[in-house]
Amino acid sequence: MHGLNVPLGDRTYPVLIGQGLLGRAEVLAPCISGRQVMVVTNEVVAPLWLKPVRAALEGFDVGVYVLPDGEDQKNLESLGLIFDSLAEHHFNRDATILALGGGVVGDIAGFAAACWQRGVAFVQLPTTLLAQVDAGIGGKTAVNIPAGKNLVGAFHQPTAVLSDVNVLNTLGRKEYCSGLAEVVKYGLGLDAGLFEWLEENLEAVLDRDPEAVERVVYWCSALKAVVVAEDERESGRRALLNLGHTFGHAIETGAYLGAWLHGEAVAAGLVMACELSVRLGKLERDVADRVERLLVASGLPVRPPPIGGSRLKALMAVDKKVAGGKLRFVLPEGLGESALCGDVPEADLDAVLALADKA
Amino acid sequence: MHGLNVPLGDRTYPVLIGQGLLGRAEVLAPCISGRQVMVVTNEVVAPLWLKPVRAALEGFDVGVYVLPDGEDQKNLESLGLIFDSLAEHHFNRDATILALGGGVVGDIAGFAAACWQRGVAFVQLPTTLLAQVDAGIGGKTAVNIPAGKNLVGAFHQPTAVLSDVNVLNTLGRKEYCSGLAEVVKYGLGLDAGLFEWLEENLEAVLDRDPEAVERVVYWCSALKAVVVAEDERESGRRALLNLGHTFGHAIETGAYLGAWLHGEAVAAGLVMACELSVRLGKLERDVADRVERLLVASGLPVRPPPIGGSRLKALMAVDKKVAGGKLRFVLPEGLGESALCGDVPEADLDAVLALADKA
Repeated sequence: MHGLNVPLGDRTYPVLIGQGLLGRAEVLAPCISGRQVMVVTNEVVAPLWLKPVRAALEGFDVGVYVLPDGEDQKNLESLGLIFDSLAEHHFNRDATILALGGGVVGDIAGFAAACWQRGVAFVQLPTTLLAQVDAGIGGKTAVNIPAGKNLVGAFHQPTAVLSDVNVLNTLGRKEYCSGLAEVVKYGLGLDAGLFEWLEENLEAVLDRDPEAVERVVYWCSALKAVVVAEDERESGRRALLNLGHTFGHAIETGAYLGAWLHGEAVAAGLVMACELSVRLGKLERDVADRVERLLVASGLPVRPPPIGGSRLKALMAVDKKVAGGKLRFVLPEGLGESALCGDVPEADLDAVLALADKA
Repeated sequence: MHGLNVPLGDRTYPVLIGQGLLGRAEVLAPCISGRQVMVVTNEVVAPLWLKPVRAALEGFDVGVYVLPDGEDQKNLESLGLIFDSLAEHHFNRDATILALGGGVVGDIAGFAAACWQRGVAFVQLPTTLLAQVDAGIGGKTAVNIPAGKNLVGAFHQPTAVLSDVNVLNTLGRKEYCSGLAEVVKYGLGLDAGLFEWLEENLEAVLDRDPEAVERVVYWCSALKAVVVAEDERESGRRALLNLGHTFGHAIETGAYLGAWLHGEAVAAGLVMACELSVRLGKLERDVADRVERLLVASGLPVRPPPIGGSRLKALMAVDKKVAGGKLRFVLPEGLGESALCGDVPEADLDAVLALADKA
């Protein structure tokens, strides 16, 4: 088992990474302060992992809320149903919410924890590669509304993150690979060493070799912990983690929620960010090509769906990274380097958005 | 104009109290940082006060969302509609939400501000006595769910509170008097001087003499600012402000939302808290009598509706002040003194709850 801390003063919390963590009471129980525990999970994860988690919670007053599967469940209606369930169990300010699932479950369960009785504790038990390397750490919680993804939410840090890499073996290939898009993002945006290691060890990672997977999850968790500690509320450096996400969110929203997995949209978004950066003279073509090759080798899409560049642009207008009416992009400026850019010429942006035009 | 600060470090904000503040651009505009302003108000307040507020916002990009009137609007559905409106206006992280209304508008608009893009600024423009002396200050925001009042919300401080006492002249007598219940609460729970001043000057306050009203609003705001600064997230002393509210919330929920005004329920709740305290030997009968007399003279109810003591008790079980499965009450222990009490004998509680039994 590996461990690290996300250092945030009196809200510092541990991220534990290892094999078989979910069923171990001696790991899980110390992460919970009161006696009331609401496990929020979904219909895909529950049959696989709810049983060991419940067994590890013996002695607690446990409630379970099972969401239907899918990104389209991450909405205000589902949130209301979780609240109703918390009320039915008479759970109060001392309750802890356990998010057992991928990014969707973590985001909505974390937001429920942020709001229930104005804030209760929650623990992340991420069950996808994407949630283990990214979404599960850092306290960003949210739901979607019809106008866009994650427009409503809270910064609410978990009290612990337990990443059991064994659970990744039950993921379908498409979902597993989706998580690799975020790993590529960390490498491209923050750490050339990770990018190069992934290029060299992609086969072991794709084969889900336990040591390779643990290394990836630990490496990304450590990168994220540093960024979150520096800039918890994303007023500066944390925005770099959105590399590929301005395009990616618009792709996800535009392509009917759920048709593209988050990581798939991010993969296409990373390529678009590289293209934009190359056009602006900030990135060498060679690096952009390596990014595209690595994503293709990871089984990920590298072009947006043909929904039209103007539609993509309209969807980006409600993005949280709009400042003073102007879109800001995170752009790669070399392997392991990226920066916020607020003055992208319209013509260059349009040229990149044209990748989404119908053939 | 009087002013004071709620001292919360880098989130310190001013409370300004005076006559005719709402229409003054030189007071309102400096409270807003960006250019985007969403005014959230309701159908009763809008015809009276929206025009001067809009005039004072010349030069800003202004959106307006008008809620129907009533406590039953403070729900997740209305919250979703406010989010949709923010998205339609393309308002982003730099937006400011203006809450123009009473406690319902302030609570839901403040919660919308807490959640929109994970948190934007908001300014309170309280238009009821209750909101000016209590709800508008301190950053408690919330909505109701079917199981109970304020079970879902956030601690999210406003960036300014502007209390224009002129607006109180348009309140109906019932609504104005409802606010006095909170004033009596401050006096009984925290400040004997305020209680005695109110006993002596009740006529001027009921006549809405501008100087008397300004004094009441300032006095209560100052008391609240100190308590909030000491204990922002209600882990200790701030809970004392819930004097009368454990009973009061249950009354409000049980008596069909909106049938009893918040302050009316608090008035009956204050009497019940006094009765309980007298039974436990913590309060002299004479003080309880003075509280009841002052509430009656203020035009407020002093008995709960006849919904049954056992029903009231069930409603209290989801109250946020439940700790470890046991109800905690704020009990008066003399004029201007109160304390949390976690070990109320069941028989004494039941005897007080019997006030809600059918005749």
